[in-house]
Amino acid sequence: MRDTVQHGSTRDAILDATDHLLSRYGYKKMTIDDLAAEVGIGKGTVYLYFPSKEEIVLSHIDRIIERLKARLWAIVHKDLPPDEKIRRMMVERVVYRFDSVQHYTQSLNEMLAKVRAKLLDRRTRYFLEEAQIFAKVLEDGNAEGVFGVSNAIDTAETLLYATNSLLPYSLSVKELGDRKTIAKRTAAIAEVCLSGLMARNDKVNK
Amino acid sequence: MRDTVQHGSTRDAILDATDHLLSRYGYKKMTIDDLAAEVGIGKGTVYLYFPSKEEIVLSHIDRIIERLKARLWAIVHKDLPPDEKIRRMMVERVVYRFDSVQHYTQSLNEMLAKVRAKLLDRRTRYFLEEAQIFAKVLEDGNAEGVFGVSNAIDTAETLLYATNSLLPYSLSVKELGDRKTIAKRTAAIAEVCLSGLMARNDKVNK
Repeated sequence: MRDTVQHGSTRDAILDATDHLLSRYGYKKMTIDDLAAEVGIGKGTVYLYFPSKEEIVLSHIDRIIERLKARLWAIVHKDLPPDEKIRRMMVERVVYRFDSVQHYTQSLNEMLAKVRAKLLDRRTRYFLEEAQIFAKVLEDGNAEGVFGVSNAIDTAETLLYATNSLLPYSLSVKELGDRKTIAKRTAAIAEVCLSGLMARNDKVNK
Repeated sequence: MRDTVQHGSTRDAILDATDHLLSRYGYKKMTIDDLAAEVGIGKGTVYLYFPSKEEIVLSHIDRIIERLKARLWAIVHKDLPPDEKIRRMMVERVVYRFDSVQHYTQSLNEMLAKVRAKLLDRRTRYFLEEAQIFAKVLEDGNAEGVFGVSNAIDTAETLLYATNSLLPYSLSVKELGDRKTIAKRTAAIAEVCLSGLMARNDKVNK
């Protein structure tokens, strides 16, 4: 367990187990012993990787965001018009988060409440990193004459704020239940925003 | 205290006292005794109007929404172009809620957690009532040829979802602290959406 590959895979295995156990037990009932047993390692080994249950859960959320960013970049690198990229990215940022937590929605609010303070700092970073990916596509769209966006990073943040209310932590379990409705609502917001961003509407960014 | 006017004023006085005491003590520490003392009535009189602290707080929130709706209608009845009305209404729905709770933001999440289940049903109703006011302006704008909106109520809901992430219950106390930033972010979302709704952009609602 000393070389990098092993290190990576044990760490990932602990985070995979976290995902399963959040679904099976919820945050409160999940223990480090449970996690160690699920991975098939000793409790001490878990502590080699993470100092606390709180840090495990935060790293689990970090991993969801890293994977989301990879999916957003994959859309950026597709051969599609920039407006279609933005449309897909807006839906992806909502639906991917939904899919990542939907098997433990019952314990989601409890978990988020426990890590709230540390999570808020991270969210600021997540948000900025996401905005940078969106800004790249807005700039590409400007260069192609598709968008008429004067400040790409500000506009990127606006697009994120416009869809933030559909993210899992903003919704109740009941509201979270319906993936199709959430995707549809996000697409509707994307549609209105994109119409506003298209360069030939001369009202944009004046 | 039997006639309607008195009834209304005692009820309002209890809700005013609720607002003060949420700020002074927070939800958890506020008691019916405190409320009665603040209004200058007996504890039994408070129970003539409200069965529980939970119901008092829900009625307090209802009153905020009723007042917000009155403010939105006041914008509707102004002599302004429909796009300027929508712009002002989007900012008003966020900033009025902010102003209504900003003196007790520290206890806001605690309070909302306590009344969560009943509040969620109410929110669905609040949301629909707000959407109907926005839909009225979108229809007026269609008639004037300013907007090209095919389904006014759906589009109204989209405008509300696009700004919901800036409402107090979606934000942390820290994020809620800055009224100017919240108003600016809302205005930026309104700007992008309105550009999208203007009828001469032929991409809208196709």
